[in-house]
Amino acid sequence: MIVLFTDFGPGGPYLGQLKAVLLDAAPGRPIVDLLDDAPAHDPMSAAYLLAALAGEFPAGTVFLAVVDPGVGGSRRPAVAEIDGRWFVGPDNGLFEPLLRRAQHARCWEIVWRPERLSASFHGRDLFAPVAARIATGEHPWDKPHWHEQPWAEPRPLELLRRPDWPDELARIVYIDRFGNAMTGMRAASLAEDAVFEVAGRRLARARTFGSVPPGTALWYENSSGLAEIAVNQGRADRALGLAVGSPVILR
Amino acid sequence: MIVLFTDFGPGGPYLGQLKAVLLDAAPGRPIVDLLDDAPAHDPMSAAYLLAALAGEFPAGTVFLAVVDPGVGGSRRPAVAEIDGRWFVGPDNGLFEPLLRRAQHARCWEIVWRPERLSASFHGRDLFAPVAARIATGEHPWDKPHWHEQPWAEPRPLELLRRPDWPDELARIVYIDRFGNAMTGMRAASLAEDAVFEVAGRRLARARTFGSVPPGTALWYENSSGLAEIAVNQGRADRALGLAVGSPVILR
Amino acid sequence: MIVLFTDFGPGGPYLGQLKAVLLDAAPGRPIVDLLDDAPAHDPMSAAYLLAALAGEFPAGTVFLAVVDPGVGGSRRPAVAEIDGRWFVGPDNGLFEPLLRRAQHARCWEIVWRPERLSASFHGRDLFAPVAARIATGEHPWDKPHWHEQPWAEPRPLELLRRPDWPDELARIVYIDRFGNAMTGMRAASLAEDAVFEVAGRRLARARTFGSVPPGTALWYENSSGLAEIAVNQGRADRALGLAVGSPVILR
Repeated sequence: MIVLFTDFGPGGPYLGQLKAVLLDAAPGRPIVDLLDDAPAHDPMSAAYLLAALAGEFPAGTVFLAVVDPGVGGSRRPAVAEIDGRWFVGPDNGLFEPLLRRAQHARCWEIVWRPERLSASFHGRDLFAPVAARIATGEHPWDKPHWHEQPWAEPRPLELLRRPDWPDELARIVYIDRFGNAMTGMRAASLAEDAVFEVAGRRLARARTFGSVPPGTALWYENSSGLAEIAVNQGRADRALGLAVGSPVILR
Repeated sequence: MIVLFTDFGPGGPYLGQLKAVLLDAAPGRPIVDLLDDAPAHDPMSAAYLLAALAGEFPAGTVFLAVVDPGVGGSRRPAVAEIDGRWFVGPDNGLFEPLLRRAQHARCWEIVWRPERLSASFHGRDLFAPVAARIATGEHPWDKPHWHEQPWAEPRPLELLRRPDWPDELARIVYIDRFGNAMTGMRAASLAEDAVFEVAGRRLARARTFGSVPPGTALWYENSSGLAEIAVNQGRADRALGLAVGSPVILR
Repeated sequence: MIVLFTDFGPGGPYLGQLKAVLLDAAPGRPIVDLLDDAPAHDPMSAAYLLAALAGEFPAGTVFLAVVDPGVGGSRRPAVAEIDGRWFVGPDNGLFEPLLRRAQHARCWEIVWRPERLSASFHGRDLFAPVAARIATGEHPWDKPHWHEQPWAEPRPLELLRRPDWPDELARIVYIDRFGNAMTGMRAASLAEDAVFEVAGRRLARARTFGSVPPGTALWYENSSGLAEIAVNQGRADRALGLAVGSPVILR
């Protein structure tokens, strides 16, 4: 299974162009659009969201993760194998929370370059062909028949690490269709009686929306394990003025 | 074929998470996103829309219908076989118009519970695994090899019925990208000379947009058989102040 | 591979209804959503965008192109084979830039009509069944077993041509999620020192966003070969007041 995690859409041709490459190079492998509206140009918020979502997928899943504001610059393309799953994307911190929580991990820098490499769309031109290879059973240490060298070189994990990032990210990383605001903190890392302060208001934990009166703001453990801010029968984003990047203070 | 009818998106990880479950549990079965922006938290509007759309699909199709504001509460998860198609979802009325128009129908309550059942996402944790089983040929009366009991128990159809709902729903149930407003009434149920009153204006029936002058509002039978309100070369939602839930008066 | 290029969404049931037809009639053929938010009701802008995107796809790809404001009127449904790729859609100019740049092309009018042909959704009822046939290896000159006549008749290419349209379209044809504005001009057709005038401002060419200071507007060759207007670390659509259809003046 190839899982797409990008900030491309919805709308626009980018996701379809990327899928066409995957379907051509890895025919028959199922493709899942996990997220197409990851925090745009914000690898840090995206990283904590990806880490919360990736654990649901079986070993062998290939994640193609493209939140890549540095495309065309000096950032390096990379592959990581983390606890049996594969991750393909830029070395901008997207995989930091996954690595921090991992049992086993290793990484490679992608040294192969395609004949056509656009300045602005490495997702289609470079990352998708690499993800397709891994999905078809080719590994970074294999020499492809068309090339004398492997297409990736082993690197120390430091290539992908951001040691200064926190274990849990105390800010909003995603707002969904219903106005619920996901934080970058795992609920299991927080005390049962932890209180959030956002926009000058204090929010207590509840099990579900329904456990508080209509119009009341709360936080709870969402279905991916993240602490999420919601308003029963309302929109937390509007009620509390939240956007991706808004800070959350723990009291 | 597994058909998804939800109020999850577009955008967000929910649809992708649900598809990953389906692809893992029912490999090779095609999945169709029929609607990801069903009327949010509004099972009644959604029900009349689903009934209009479902008839196009072949016998054996499995519909996974998740418009589920009662998730985590006391509503019960259900399966219905209606005229040869399968429907999986909550017992909140979503299948009422289908049942009312059915030749043959029966229903079950889903009594199986997964090891991990989140409070807020039964679509992924409970309904998708059940839809996958049906899509792979397992039926509610089968005992799975991993369990001594069937995963569903037969129930009277009353579980799913809403006898107080109307045969045709005289309100707006969907507004599309072009501003056209679908009602919950089948055009075939209405007189040829039926007149709609919305926002203080009266609209006559036309065969297509093009049969009235530019800027004129009309109603017509849309491609799913519903009465739909449109403005030739304009947006009916803005011109008439329509939203999902707006009433339509028949004159 | 069947590639969908429409102005249907995102959101709404139309794309899903169309895919259900394809999956039923051409099982196992991969379907790619290339674009679901093509310029609405604007075949001219859509045509230059389609021509820029189609070249990436392998020979044999079937494009189902539905930007069809004339549906239900007198426009004719058509099939074209252009440089080894297949295109199915209305005869409203959608394929003009492709034909103008083609080595080899031929076209047919679709004369088959389905039993059920809605007035407003030929994409589902007429174009999708035809695209499915081509994807399964049936050609316009074949007689289907259920019919004594071929389903399409050869026509002169003039059916699809728009001789008065320009080689390159000097206006905005698409605005993406990031506010970047694609023009209908191929960058390779423009001088290196070409200057664009939009909204009273003059923009020079750059290789990438990053080659100009933050906040500066530029134009560059995008990943599909089109000249695209962007603002480094900003939104070109808002900064320059651009929308689909806005003219671009070459200085």
